[in-house]
Amino acid sequence: MRAVDIIHKKRNGGALTNEELSFLITGYSRGEIPDYQMSAWAMAVFFQGMSAEETASLTTAMAESGDQVDLSPIRGIKVDKHSTGGVGDKTSLIIGPLVASCGVPVAKMSGRGLGHTGGTIDKMESMPGFRTELTREDFIAQVNGIGVAIIGQSGNMAPADKKLYALRDVTATVESIPLIASSVMSKKIAAGADAIVLDVKTGSGAFMKTLDDSEKLAQAMVDIGTQVGRRTAALISDMDQPLGFAIGNALEVREAIETLHGRGPADLTALCIALASHMVVLGGQAGDLEEAEALLREKLRSGEALAKFKQFVAAQGADPAVGDDPALLPQAPLLVEVPAPKSGCVHAIQAEELGLAAMLLGAGRETKDSVIDHAVGITLQRKVGETVREGETLALLHVREDNAAVQTVLKRVQEAYAIGEEQLAPSPLLLSIVTEQGVTRF
Amino acid sequence: MRAVDIIHKKRNGGALTNEELSFLITGYSRGEIPDYQMSAWAMAVFFQGMSAEETASLTTAMAESGDQVDLSPIRGIKVDKHSTGGVGDKTSLIIGPLVASCGVPVAKMSGRGLGHTGGTIDKMESMPGFRTELTREDFIAQVNGIGVAIIGQSGNMAPADKKLYALRDVTATVESIPLIASSVMSKKIAAGADAIVLDVKTGSGAFMKTLDDSEKLAQAMVDIGTQVGRRTAALISDMDQPLGFAIGNALEVREAIETLHGRGPADLTALCIALASHMVVLGGQAGDLEEAEALLREKLRSGEALAKFKQFVAAQGADPAVGDDPALLPQAPLLVEVPAPKSGCVHAIQAEELGLAAMLLGAGRETKDSVIDHAVGITLQRKVGETVREGETLALLHVREDNAAVQTVLKRVQEAYAIGEEQLAPSPLLLSIVTEQGVTRF
Repeated sequence: MRAVDIIHKKRNGGALTNEELSFLITGYSRGEIPDYQMSAWAMAVFFQGMSAEETASLTTAMAESGDQVDLSPIRGIKVDKHSTGGVGDKTSLIIGPLVASCGVPVAKMSGRGLGHTGGTIDKMESMPGFRTELTREDFIAQVNGIGVAIIGQSGNMAPADKKLYALRDVTATVESIPLIASSVMSKKIAAGADAIVLDVKTGSGAFMKTLDDSEKLAQAMVDIGTQVGRRTAALISDMDQPLGFAIGNALEVREAIETLHGRGPADLTALCIALASHMVVLGGQAGDLEEAEALLREKLRSGEALAKFKQFVAAQGADPAVGDDPALLPQAPLLVEVPAPKSGCVHAIQAEELGLAAMLLGAGRETKDSVIDHAVGITLQRKVGETVREGETLALLHVREDNAAVQTVLKRVQEAYAIGEEQLAPSPLLLSIVTEQGVTRF
Repeated sequence: MRAVDIIHKKRNGGALTNEELSFLITGYSRGEIPDYQMSAWAMAVFFQGMSAEETASLTTAMAESGDQVDLSPIRGIKVDKHSTGGVGDKTSLIIGPLVASCGVPVAKMSGRGLGHTGGTIDKMESMPGFRTELTREDFIAQVNGIGVAIIGQSGNMAPADKKLYALRDVTATVESIPLIASSVMSKKIAAGADAIVLDVKTGSGAFMKTLDDSEKLAQAMVDIGTQVGRRTAALISDMDQPLGFAIGNALEVREAIETLHGRGPADLTALCIALASHMVVLGGQAGDLEEAEALLREKLRSGEALAKFKQFVAAQGADPAVGDDPALLPQAPLLVEVPAPKSGCVHAIQAEELGLAAMLLGAGRETKDSVIDHAVGITLQRKVGETVREGETLALLHVREDNAAVQTVLKRVQEAYAIGEEQLAPSPLLLSIVTEQGVTRF
């Protein structure tokens, strides 16, 4: 078998076999197949696509390229959740304890933030003392004990995907649905869950700009799950604005706690309930989505979800009192108002721009080695569909001090808001669901 | 400017600017742009193509990546000829002196053979004493003196093309018309001729399998010539069988001499006259193709073309007596007959297979470092359209000794002949002409 023949076959529209894809990925992992062949292959895939079988073979090969987590010592159906990346997305912090309170074990590995996107691990670490590195034994024991643990990705998970992704990034081969789908799913499959719920963002701020493309990506991931025997469902949600109000680590933890108290932002709460419902159904703790939703609302109302959050926080070394008193979280000393440059209705808020703004304030990482400030960030005072008068506050910057850099960020936040004369209703958050049974648009 | 953005633009079907292509090629030459970006770009070009302007910009950038020959000290319009590669193609040996005898200066650089294709330099070196390395001064003085010189490619000609071609070869990105066209033309442009005549082979044994594709390639090369101010014409000829009868270095020189005597194979003579006619017209020594052809036939008939060949051979250090006595060339001691395995009519002869067979006998190079034997080779006794009885000779192998390796080659030559029951007329050799004025099919 030769890589050049495999590239040629794909270039001419052929379907690659499991053996060919395995040869390619194994060889690439080992450094036997060079970058220049993989990038040519990736570009051929960009143009010719891949069948569901090919995509599953690629995903499996990448999942098998490194460590694979064995979650079998954990009782029950382990359900994982993944988001394709959103700004202000603190759903994992809410859904973890919420789903666990319904009896579905959550054994989750999360990442750190880079660029405009935050990471669950960074957010959790804004709780003083919170440990995100547990041994495998402690991780499993904690899930078996209290039903939930969230730790940082450790070891060598899907290294072929990591290497290929870095290559795609510099060869204009990122925007290929089978390659995106296999990248996401290879990591989830290596992470060992029995079932997977995906949160696929769509819209101007997301990777997938149109609902059609987002549904195709969701379908590709669900198909992979089906092929490899991990039940998968995907929810497609709007990203024409950030999720909730808070962007920044401690600010987002606070908002997650508010949501667990039942008084979180409507959009964030709705998305958490929708994702969690699928997890509860796949986890076998409810017969259908309606039953799951009723159960979840009851867990929020009764305080059981919040109690599970406090148990989880305590188990991982932080003070559970934060669940009742968010003032225990680090806070930035200064609030700087971002005034509306004109009157009108908010038509859109560029989520990616706000993510970058928060990063520039210190809440995120510009490079892997950047040190982040858990206290700083942005809280939105106006969201899409709301009216504002010139000079009124669009958002608050939570900062250490006011300076030229902060003023630059302020301008950027102002410009991220599209304000028009027409009164617009906010567009719906949840757009579509893709499962093994097909696509359902709301 | 970033390579990834250029790849992205091409991937999405955009037309690259002269600056972008120059940035890419210069950066690649210098090792600043890595192979993995160039291969992804080449694959994007494979799918999206390039406009005539883009192709010309790419060609110019590659021509400018290394040494460029200045032929201005040579009087007259210098016309170069290039073949896209054929088996048994000894046209340069004939056309050089023939065209020079009409007053068109020929200052030609040729290559060596590799794999199934022979090289003019190797063929000429089968004449004992023939020098293929001349200084620039001697080269120019010889063309000004006797009208013709053919030397080996020296220096650093179009190194970006060389590097890119090697990369395309291992990334399944060879078969792109703009990339093939710019590769050929970049070398011809760097070689300094004022006008260029191309011999584009088509058919099962050629790079381009169909006449349509061959015409597209020819058009792309003519367009490049037009864009960069080098008048270019392309002749498309059949390669469903080798050209002439001889394959192998000294054997081909002998056939070239026979042709200059006016008694060469019909197909070879016809192709030489056709190519040379265009050269004479572009070189300003005839008003039209008819006039050029009459002039060329007269030069062959009168012996002036042969006399020019002897002058040329003498100038480059070999014995001009070879022009009248081909027995001065090295000869293999043994002839092995290849018998027809069945009776019938020859329908096709796989040229590439015969090229490989000759290489295996020692006439060609398997790797760059192989040493070749000028005496060995193959002479065809039957060509397409001829009938043969079982056991009659299809071809002769010219070898040092008969052994197992020779018997393996014999089988291969037998299998390269397609013999059918139906009586077939040979297909025409010359199929189409592409000039600045457009395409003319014969």
